Amino acid sequence: MSFSFDLLNKCSGTNARRGRIHTGRGEINTPVFMPVGTQGTVKAMTPDMLHQLDVEIILGNTYHLYLRPGHKLVKELGGLHKFIGWDRPLLTDSGGFQVYSLGSLRKISEEGVRFQSHIDGSYHFLSPESSISIQEDLGADIIMCFDECPPYPATYDYVETSLDMTLRWAKRCKSAKKNDGSALFGIIQGGMFEDLRRRSAEETKEIGFDGYALGGLSVGETKPLMYNMVEATVPFMPEDKPRYLMGVGTPEDLVENIARGIDMFDCVMPTRNARNGSLFTSSGKLVIKNSRYERDDLPVDEKCACYTCRNFSRAYLRHLFMAKEILSSTLNTIHNLHYYLNLMREIRSAIEENRFAQYKKEFYALRDAGIEQL
Amino acid sequence: MSFSFDLLNKCSGTNARRGRIHTGRGEINTPVFMPVGTQGTVKAMTPDMLHQLDVEIILGNTYHLYLRPGHKLVKELGGLHKFIGWDRPLLTDSGGFQVYSLGSLRKISEEGVRFQSHIDGSYHFLSPESSISIQEDLGADIIMCFDECPPYPATYDYVETSLDMTLRWAKRCKSAKKNDGSALFGIIQGGMFEDLRRRSAEETKEIGFDGYALGGLSVGETKPLMYNMVEATVPFMPEDKPRYLMGVGTPEDLVENIARGIDMFDCVMPTRNARNGSLFTSSGKLVIKNSRYERDDLPVDEKCACYTCRNFSRAYLRHLFMAKEILSSTLNTIHNLHYYLNLMREIRSAIEENRFAQYKKEFYALRDAGIEQL
Repeated sequence: MSFSFDLLNKCSGTNARRGRIHTGRGEINTPVFMPVGTQGTVKAMTPDMLHQLDVEIILGNTYHLYLRPGHKLVKELGGLHKFIGWDRPLLTDSGGFQVYSLGSLRKISEEGVRFQSHIDGSYHFLSPESSISIQEDLGADIIMCFDECPPYPATYDYVETSLDMTLRWAKRCKSAKKNDGSALFGIIQGGMFEDLRRRSAEETKEIGFDGYALGGLSVGETKPLMYNMVEATVPFMPEDKPRYLMGVGTPEDLVENIARGIDMFDCVMPTRNARNGSLFTSSGKLVIKNSRYERDDLPVDEKCACYTCRNFSRAYLRHLFMAKEILSSTLNTIHNLHYYLNLMREIRSAIEENRFAQYKKEFYALRDAGIEQL
Repeated sequence: MSFSFDLLNKCSGTNARRGRIHTGRGEINTPVFMPVGTQGTVKAMTPDMLHQLDVEIILGNTYHLYLRPGHKLVKELGGLHKFIGWDRPLLTDSGGFQVYSLGSLRKISEEGVRFQSHIDGSYHFLSPESSISIQEDLGADIIMCFDECPPYPATYDYVETSLDMTLRWAKRCKSAKKNDGSALFGIIQGGMFEDLRRRSAEETKEIGFDGYALGGLSVGETKPLMYNMVEATVPFMPEDKPRYLMGVGTPEDLVENIARGIDMFDCVMPTRNARNGSLFTSSGKLVIKNSRYERDDLPVDEKCACYTCRNFSRAYLRHLFMAKEILSSTLNTIHNLHYYLNLMREIRSAIEENRFAQYKKEFYALRDAGIEQL
């Protein structure tokens, strides 16, 4: 399998690191933000637009693709890359988190999870083995172990029991993997308990994976608690493998967790917020429907070089949003993804030049100074 | 004003003609199809996509833009071109047809039309003078006279009375025009009565406009009746000015009316059908949600060179449609507009090479042979 990770350099002032993942479908420069393509499309984006944004990897959701159009169909049509017209790296999650999110519609046992489809209520069963098999059919470059994501808050006992099962599932996932074409990442759980996080990290590492993810965060806990959990876990994760914080997060979350040694992120926030008219700028969030933008000739962010900011005013974007035009989602998504991708580019440069601690200060200063203006 | 029309050549077998409109913002090769950008956007398309499709002119709707975001706002922000990021020619309709479509929400008098907004029920008044003034604020390259579009069916008396008012309105529109930056087109009415169509054409011509449109067609009459009306009217329209058949139509309508001497068309059909999953191909219509396409690896049209057909299968497009993804509208619209634009390109070549009559035969043969396959 052609998967490897080079640690290029570390920042002296923080735990931030600059790396590069090599896959058969191209390189991924880390720290990286991965746009989410839930149902086989990053919502409102063509693959061409993603290329123009220099997106190096996108994520697909196994739960959604399993239900519709079905992994067998995707495999028959040449795999997820070919199906969706995306030739760069692709990561699929295991379905574990989505199934956990179904709440009362799912039942967890040692064997796996029985759940009902959110589309038609039909019954399905996902196990470590079937999750890996589905992901291999989809054919992503990076696939994830099937885990249990405990709720928040949860008792120590619940999290410990769950963690032990997730470790047994991790072994089953590793054994189930048949195909050499994809890298398999383990997932560290342990709720909000530092010692359980540490044990999870150590035992997952012992099983041995191509990369390690932190799961079960950004599930309702406070930001400081999330950051503490990352800080408490990273020292027990291998240096020479990518570290992926799943489902995170805001621009601040990215900056904070990169400072704590995380390499990979994914989140629906830039794309979902875009569709809701909430736009990211270096000076904070801009809510485009606000009447103050009705006659505003400025771009969303004067410092931004994206297609949207180069061509359209806040007034036009507000009009498109108010008129419920599809182009509103498209232009807003281009802008928000550009913001996230550009933030990561800036951060990578800052780490390369060993000035990430300074960059982090400026990031907050710029945002705090700007909030009044928007 | 920099507006002119060159008649390049005529086809010997039909009344089809190849022409070129020159405007301050570029050339328009005729016969031309103009995509409709109702609310300041061709739905689901970025201006970049329209450029890639070689769109030379788009249409904006005065009624919609007057209500939202408002012509004064658009003017303040530099005009419609700048507002929507479109640097090529732009045509606005007069609002007459839209107001007519409001049915019971509008009341017509000699002075103009009082109507209620479809957005919030507020009362408004449009007259020949205000329509021209609004269109001048929007700043399109081609603007249209404010007319009354009689219903179908309508009595001879109703249509004759309406026609006389439309002629008085046409004079008022011409007098109201203050700005030299745009061309003004007259609109020929006359319902389904050949003699009224003729009189309307002759008297509109007498007033004198930069181009002449046929209004009040494609309002529920049969195809043969529409074609007959065009055929009966064109001989009384000037040779040296563009002829525009408003709101038409299907690919067949384009072929048939080009054969009868029409130069310009607009219709929401390619864009609206795209959003509903109905795709145009050289072999007829393809309804993408049909289960026969579930595992279909072929592009929508193997002969098509559009971005959608070059990159995606029917199976993927069906998946996007079933999953209600925004990308479904985008990719389908790219394909349908490409189909229309390409049809017009082929027709222009055929007229240039004096083989349009033959092209027309092949167009029907190809479609009839293909219908079985889809």
